[in-house]
Amino acid sequence: MAGPAAGPWLRLGRRPLAGGGAGRPEEEPPASRRARGQRARPTLKMALAAGRRVPLRALLSAGLGIARTGARDGVRRFANHRVLVEPDAAAGVAVLKFKNPPVNSLSLEFLTEFNISLEKLENDKAFRGVVITSDRPGIFSAGLDLMEMCGRNPAHYAEYWKAVQEMWLRLYQSSLVLIAAINGAAPAGGCMISICCDYRVLADNPKYVIGLNETLLGIVAPFWFKDTMVNTIGHRATERALQLGMLFPPAQALQVGLVDQVVPEDKVQSTALSVMSQWMAIPDHARQLTKSMMRKATVDHLVKQREADIQNFVSFISKDSIQKSLQVYLEKLKQKKG
Amino acid sequence: MAGPAAGPWLRLGRRPLAGGGAGRPEEEPPASRRARGQRARPTLKMALAAGRRVPLRALLSAGLGIARTGARDGVRRFANHRVLVEPDAAAGVAVLKFKNPPVNSLSLEFLTEFNISLEKLENDKAFRGVVITSDRPGIFSAGLDLMEMCGRNPAHYAEYWKAVQEMWLRLYQSSLVLIAAINGAAPAGGCMISICCDYRVLADNPKYVIGLNETLLGIVAPFWFKDTMVNTIGHRATERALQLGMLFPPAQALQVGLVDQVVPEDKVQSTALSVMSQWMAIPDHARQLTKSMMRKATVDHLVKQREADIQNFVSFISKDSIQKSLQVYLEKLKQKKG
Amino acid sequence: MAGPAAGPWLRLGRRPLAGGGAGRPEEEPPASRRARGQRARPTLKMALAAGRRVPLRALLSAGLGIARTGARDGVRRFANHRVLVEPDAAAGVAVLKFKNPPVNSLSLEFLTEFNISLEKLENDKAFRGVVITSDRPGIFSAGLDLMEMCGRNPAHYAEYWKAVQEMWLRLYQSSLVLIAAINGAAPAGGCMISICCDYRVLADNPKYVIGLNETLLGIVAPFWFKDTMVNTIGHRATERALQLGMLFPPAQALQVGLVDQVVPEDKVQSTALSVMSQWMAIPDHARQLTKSMMRKATVDHLVKQREADIQNFVSFISKDSIQKSLQVYLEKLKQKKG
Repeated sequence: MAGPAAGPWLRLGRRPLAGGGAGRPEEEPPASRRARGQRARPTLKMALAAGRRVPLRALLSAGLGIARTGARDGVRRFANHRVLVEPDAAAGVAVLKFKNPPVNSLSLEFLTEFNISLEKLENDKAFRGVVITSDRPGIFSAGLDLMEMCGRNPAHYAEYWKAVQEMWLRLYQSSLVLIAAINGAAPAGGCMISICCDYRVLADNPKYVIGLNETLLGIVAPFWFKDTMVNTIGHRATERALQLGMLFPPAQALQVGLVDQVVPEDKVQSTALSVMSQWMAIPDHARQLTKSMMRKATVDHLVKQREADIQNFVSFISKDSIQKSLQVYLEKLKQKKG
Repeated sequence: MAGPAAGPWLRLGRRPLAGGGAGRPEEEPPASRRARGQRARPTLKMALAAGRRVPLRALLSAGLGIARTGARDGVRRFANHRVLVEPDAAAGVAVLKFKNPPVNSLSLEFLTEFNISLEKLENDKAFRGVVITSDRPGIFSAGLDLMEMCGRNPAHYAEYWKAVQEMWLRLYQSSLVLIAAINGAAPAGGCMISICCDYRVLADNPKYVIGLNETLLGIVAPFWFKDTMVNTIGHRATERALQLGMLFPPAQALQVGLVDQVVPEDKVQSTALSVMSQWMAIPDHARQLTKSMMRKATVDHLVKQREADIQNFVSFISKDSIQKSLQVYLEKLKQKKG
Repeated sequence: MAGPAAGPWLRLGRRPLAGGGAGRPEEEPPASRRARGQRARPTLKMALAAGRRVPLRALLSAGLGIARTGARDGVRRFANHRVLVEPDAAAGVAVLKFKNPPVNSLSLEFLTEFNISLEKLENDKAFRGVVITSDRPGIFSAGLDLMEMCGRNPAHYAEYWKAVQEMWLRLYQSSLVLIAAINGAAPAGGCMISICCDYRVLADNPKYVIGLNETLLGIVAPFWFKDTMVNTIGHRATERALQLGMLFPPAQALQVGLVDQVVPEDKVQSTALSVMSQWMAIPDHARQLTKSMMRKATVDHLVKQREADIQNFVSFISKDSIQKSLQVYLEKLKQKKG
């Protein structure tokens, strides 16, 4: 495996673009840019509603149907509007890039697309490993989208939480080798995605902090975030980091074990791909059984309580006090930007 | 929060002292000093009996009744004969100091007073954090009082053990931020108190060792001490430290993760208070839920087996062989002193 | 305890040698050397069959009968053809040396002898600690014997796996202090034996790697190997090491916590004996109860699923795909040697 895959970037939406062109952000049509820009604003009910109306299965079938038409080594369609996938079928590796401006927040729409991409890659035998990174250096992912948790109804909160669980389940028990190429800040859900991977490479930039900082917002990480963190850095470090909502800059993240390697910013993806080749050297079946053995208890913990966990989230997030503190936080964010 | 709280030291006994004066050790009445001095000697049945005769609830009510009379920012009465409390209600922080000469051993009487102080602080909304330290630099706490475990009857052992459990349960699931300012040696129970806290600052003095050294005395730490230790320094380090009864000097304690910070002896309390202000910055509710999530399984483990654990302790400690080895140990201690 | 025990080496087979002479490898009779040489070759059914025909209990009784005839401080018979035991009853310590050329692989015959030696030492009150090492510097143990897992019938696989479980159970819950003096490479089962001990000293030779490298062979370490590893180096390091089949050279093994000390090659055994004297200073009863408390949950995990674990192994190893990959691996090994 030499360097990043050569195939052009593709974005596959609910209606796949003919030709699959599109390319880099600066080339995209203003309409599309505007639509995504809106996502950062407090009221985007229409876009979200639209996102929710499309059933996951339908999206998936559409995507797969097209994917099968690609040439062996060429362009495959695992991507969406907000999740780019650069497949290198020859190497068995894909690079998946978050592209949900401005901060790759995990909106319901984004999660739906991410989950679809993960499912497609999981089911395609051509792929054995995925590098997860951001299309927008500077921010890996800002984590859960507070807009989905604020001022909505219980049914929405439940649907959203289910999608978050779905992402965690797909990532944490993936049979693929997942390597996080963390090329930007990774607070909260951004950290969670990272620690679900098999290996983490972080860019050496003091602004690129990583951690589960939920308490700072007055909320609490779910037990399965916590379990994943304990599995990664141990009980004591987790207890302290979670209570204080600690965000670790690279050196400290490395020291506490939150990431496995810190490299210069321009080496993040190439390092991830080079590490990937080490993991590819292991027979898949034995590696997958081993990974499953390591993670099964943690996965079962959520699977057994999935419904209760949703109810718990809905009743917690619906509380007036929590809603109020989220609104205060969002107001602050707005003023900061404006 | 700037430096230690300003209020005078108060000691609140079963009969609160009028005026609450008393102050530092050298100023206290000879009678009181004598009484506490006696605690170090092998036969103190009368004092202990007296201590046991006062039900916790009665003590508590008395204490609370008085506490409520204090001025908002001024002197509050959370303290006892052996547990000093320096409240700084404005900062929301109290400094709790062990004062059970000569070595702050956890006698039944001491435990009763400590548990009362903890309950009062826990229930008073003015307080969000407590720094736990020793009034007697040089010794944080020598741990469980062997006198309570030697030459007594099963009912006494049961009562004593229940008080030890009570302390652990209060400390480990406290909703307050607890920071240990370890200004002296902390073997056995002294270590246990420390690792129940949220953060540990140890004075940089090679004599100030910390660890669960029960095996050296021929006894075994209960499973919940062990669980707390595993949560703090991990399984392997605990397995080795507990089997060997290791007492770690500051540098090693820091390395193994038994303490979080080692500072010059005269900076222990100020460091603890400065760390406290970081913890105070976190919204209480989110921090408390997070702490509870981290510790619940460990707490439940004891709660579910509390009665069995008492029976187990009583039958173990009642064995002739154990009694004999404790007596040998106590004889040695006496000769050392004498 | 000063240096290695003084008693002569004894090997105790199914028919104990009169006089018990025999001594070092270069002095042994050519016939014996030839027999052990054969063990390295793919077809040794006769030798193995012979090994299996002797019931463990019979071997044990024979051994014990003779052991009791030895002088107090002198030669005791805990050894076998493949397991040398150098007893120092005065010190309460024995040095047990693997001698199963060429690579101390854990054949059924070897396991049977090892288990017998462990049982004898466990039951003899003269011994409180055992140093486990290799008679053949350069290789501690190559681990499970692939010959026992390849081209045999299910009954054989089941019998073999039961013996592996037996070894793990004897080692991991031994009431003796076990110290591994790792004077050679310790892959797979060799690593497992090491991490079952209470302390590990590794020779500082970059060729002496240690780790659970099962995935490299296309197989999966059983959950109790995994549990032992997690107890030793934590969840994250285990997850990575097991998936990648990592073999750690001394410096890395020390850093990850897989061994406790790295010393020059000629100091391994003396260091182990010197560490042993520290462990001997702890009252046995308290240390044993503490060890049992630390390991009980892990032991119970296997004990409760022992039969299912055997069935699981048999059906996994019987698969055509697994048999094929083992055969390929064995062929490679043969060609390497030839």
